[in-house]
Order: sequence, then structure tokens, then C-alpha cells
Amino acid sequence: MRSAHVQFAKGHGTENDFVILPDPENKLGLTAALTARLCDRRAGIGADGVLRAVRTAALPVTGRPGDVRAGDGAGWFMDYRNADGSVAEMCGNGIRVFARYLLEHQLVSGPAFGVATRSGVRQVRAEPDGQLTVDMGPATVLGPGQAVLDGAVHRGLRISVGNPHLACPVDDELGKFDLTTPPGLDPADFPDGGNVELVRVSGPAALSMRVHERGSGETRSCGTGAVAAAAAAQHAAGPAASRWQVTVPGGQLTVTLDAATSWLTGPAVIVAEGQLDAGWLSG
Amino acid sequence: MRSAHVQFAKGHGTENDFVILPDPENKLGLTAALTARLCDRRAGIGADGVLRAVRTAALPVTGRPGDVRAGDGAGWFMDYRNADGSVAEMCGNGIRVFARYLLEHQLVSGPAFGVATRSGVRQVRAEPDGQLTVDMGPATVLGPGQAVLDGAVHRGLRISVGNPHLACPVDDELGKFDLTTPPGLDPADFPDGGNVELVRVSGPAALSMRVHERGSGETRSCGTGAVAAAAAAQHAAGPAASRWQVTVPGGQLTVTLDAATSWLTGPAVIVAEGQLDAGWLSG
Repeated sequence: MRSAHVQFAKGHGTENDFVILPDPENKLGLTAALTARLCDRRAGIGADGVLRAVRTAALPVTGRPGDVRAGDGAGWFMDYRNADGSVAEMCGNGIRVFARYLLEHQLVSGPAFGVATRSGVRQVRAEPDGQLTVDMGPATVLGPGQAVLDGAVHRGLRISVGNPHLACPVDDELGKFDLTTPPGLDPADFPDGGNVELVRVSGPAALSMRVHERGSGETRSCGTGAVAAAAAAQHAAGPAASRWQVTVPGGQLTVTLDAATSWLTGPAVIVAEGQLDAGWLSG
Repeated sequence: MRSAHVQFAKGHGTENDFVILPDPENKLGLTAALTARLCDRRAGIGADGVLRAVRTAALPVTGRPGDVRAGDGAGWFMDYRNADGSVAEMCGNGIRVFARYLLEHQLVSGPAFGVATRSGVRQVRAEPDGQLTVDMGPATVLGPGQAVLDGAVHRGLRISVGNPHLACPVDDELGKFDLTTPPGLDPADFPDGGNVELVRVSGPAALSMRVHERGSGETRSCGTGAVAAAAAAQHAAGPAASRWQVTVPGGQLTVTLDAATSWLTGPAVIVAEGQLDAGWLSG
């Protein structure tokens, strides 16, 4: 890091939590090692990932496909990194926290604006009740699949929300399942692994879910997982229900499905803001 | 909380981490509920406990035994709270982080000073290499005892460092033990439960340990546990060795034992400082 005074914020969306690093001029030089140190829950700030906020005007233009540029409809680029330091494309809970930060600092003029991500510009909208809605792209039902969990086979639907999911309807209380070990997936269906949702439909437009995320284990919330769970429930219910209340361990989300795309609505909270300690940064 | 702009810092000592709340005039009105929210690792800042820093001159004098007052040799009182919001007396890792904060903000004149705690004034000293040493009080060997761990009986020494410990010497690699469930202790020996250390002596004045803390489970470090482990090793080795290098999962500590007391030396790091979000505080 080049600066001695590095600002940060910490926030969460349904208990999926993030360190936000404002870097308007794209000068921080954030490394994978520093990302991992920041996300360390004992020796750092602690988070599931880092959201670096860069003005699109400050991004280099490489000429390669996927370049994010000023003038593409988004003033800010969300540089999302996982807790291990690896780069990721998008995060449905993270982008709400990112949008909340931009709104609180009056860095965008709401209520609706675009945010540039590695998977393109995503539209975000602040709702009258303070929640935030983000365009998650289409949820595509690919066909049946199955997962082995604690020795039992669970059948479900393979669904793509940009990333691969298996959403399994269950009748039992969600609390009885053990998600401490990764569910077994058929490598023919999931060559790169996948996220597994256990989905319990609790009403005509309501469901509860738990999720095991590829590479992370069970989490308190997963934005694409909520969309996949709603798409699976709608597939079973027929086209009538298109707006689902989704209860995750970390809170409440709403998923709206239409023919072209899906929308995820939920809370986003900034907990604190400040400066990283210069001694810690150089340590 | 009465103030709209509440300052905080986050720091750790051998990965035992704390939120520090400067409250010189004793006006914050910190509640158990807010302490627990601050320590929540997803929806708050995240920490093992809170260290509120209050000038002793601002403490009320109740006339009850244990009153901490200005003029008792300490300018600052460490109001230590566990992550669940409960009040605690002392914390050997926390007091180093507390002392680091006071030193960095020039709120004490080092290198040696007293810090008032609920178990009296503790002497702290900044070492030339930047580590901090704190007087932990005497470690008293009470007699033999045993713990049942994963079906196996481990014999050890019952030791009081203000709080109750069972330090068990082991010959096996520390990594092979399962500390996910609380070790079974004899209620006759430990009416209020106790902390259990697995201690592997690795040299004439060096040991490694893992610790299961009463009420917290396995932790990355425990200050009184390190003292208890060193006292048990010294008991076995005879009086020659009085200064022990102690390796805990979160780092390195040094324990010095003499006839009257014990001293714990180790690092203390401030990670970041800032302000709590007013909306989060009132949420």
C-alpha cells in the first residue's frame, strides 16, 4: 500500500460482511496478501471479502474484452476480492453494501445507478424503505441434479445464476441438516463444484434456506443462492409466484423473477469507518 | 450510547482481539447488548471482548470494597467485557492491547505505568523491542487433577492464576487433540469449571500449548493459560527455569515466574481506528 492514511469502512448485508476500501484514484495497490490480512478475523479487521471502490475514470484501458470504462453508465467500479485474496466477479450481498457506502458518502446520485463489476454493469436501486435492490441477471434452470449430504441423497435442480447451484427442496426443519462438510456433487454435472441450497417452502411466496458455498462452507447468506432457491421454488410452483420472501440465517431477502432477469432486494448496513493503523499496514 | 460520534479502535494480542472504546469521562453508558453487538463478527466489528478506557478520576466512588479511584497509582481504568456482554475482571492479552492504545495516544507516560482493573492495579511495562509486559499476579499450584478429553483421561496440575486452570503435560503433537467439545472436569476440583491447557515442553525453557477456555471454547491465546502452563512446566522442571517461551496458536509469549508473582510479555497491535456509524449505533 502506498498511502500512510488508508481509509476503510466495515459493513454487512444479511451478515455477509465486507471491508470497503475507498480508492477513487486507483492508487492503493491492493495485494492478495493485504486482502487476506484485512479479512483475518483475529489479526485484521475481519470480513468475508474486500470491496475496493474505484472511479471508472481512473481505470486503465487495456483494450481487452471486459474492460470497464468511464462512460459505460457507471461512475464506480467494485473491485471485489474474496477473503483469501482471490479476485471475484460479483457478489449480490457485497454490491448492496458497496452501494450503501456510495450513497452515504454522496458519491452517486440515487435512487437508481449502475455499478461496474467484473461481470458488467449492474443496476442498483435504493428502495423507499432503505433496502437496496440489485439486478442479478437471469436465473437459468438447467435440469435435475443431486447432492449427497451426511450419507443421504438430496434431489434438486441445477440452476445457473452466473455461477453454478443445486437447489434441493426439503420437507424437514432446516436446523437438522449438517452442512459442516461439503455436499457431494456429481462432477459430470458440476465440473467446477457448486453451491448447494437446502430450500424449505413455507408459503405461496415464501421460503427458508441454508447454503453451502463452494470454497467457503456454510455461510449466513448468499445472494446468488437466494436467487437460485427462489427460481427452484418458482419452477415447482408454476409461473404465478414471481416475488419470493427468502429467509437466510443472516436475515431476510426478497427475490423478484421475470422472464429476462432476477432482482435481489435486502438490507445493507455500514457498521463503522476509520483509518488503518500505519504500523499494522507496514507490519 | 449517548454520543453520536463514538470512537473505537480494534487491536489484538497474539490474536486475542478486542474493540477499544475510549471513554475518558465515563459517559458512554456501555450496555451488555451493545457490547455483544460490537463483538458480533458478522453484524458488528467483531472481537473477543471490549476494552473501555475510562479515566480513574471520572469513576464514581461508591464506598464499596473494590472501588477504583484516582490517586491509586493508575490514571486509566480498563473496563473489560466479554463478547457476550458480561463483565470480567482482567485479561492478560487485553491489558497489553489496552496499554498499547494508551501509549500510542500518549495518554500515559511510559515505559512503566499502572492500569486499574476490577482485580486491582496491574503494572505494565513497555519493553525496548516494543513488546509489553504485565504483572499477572502469582500462579499457585494447588495439586493434581484430571480432564477427560475425547474419551481419554489427561492428568495435570490444578493451578490458580486468579482463575482456575488445569495444565496437562502431553507428549503427542498438539495438533492431534480435539478441543471442539469442553474437556470433562471433576466438579469437586472445579466447582465453577475451569480452563484446560495441553502443554508440550519442547526445550529447557520452551513449551507449546493449546487451551480450552471456560465459556469460550478453544481460543488462539489465553494470557492466564500461558502463565499456568509455564507454572506447570516449572513445577516439573524444578526452580531452575523461571523464564518460559510459550508458543500459542496465535503467536509467541514469554512468562517470567518469581516467588511473588508472574509476568507475561508479548506483542500488542492496533489494527485500525475510527468511528462507529450513527445509524448502526441506533439500529
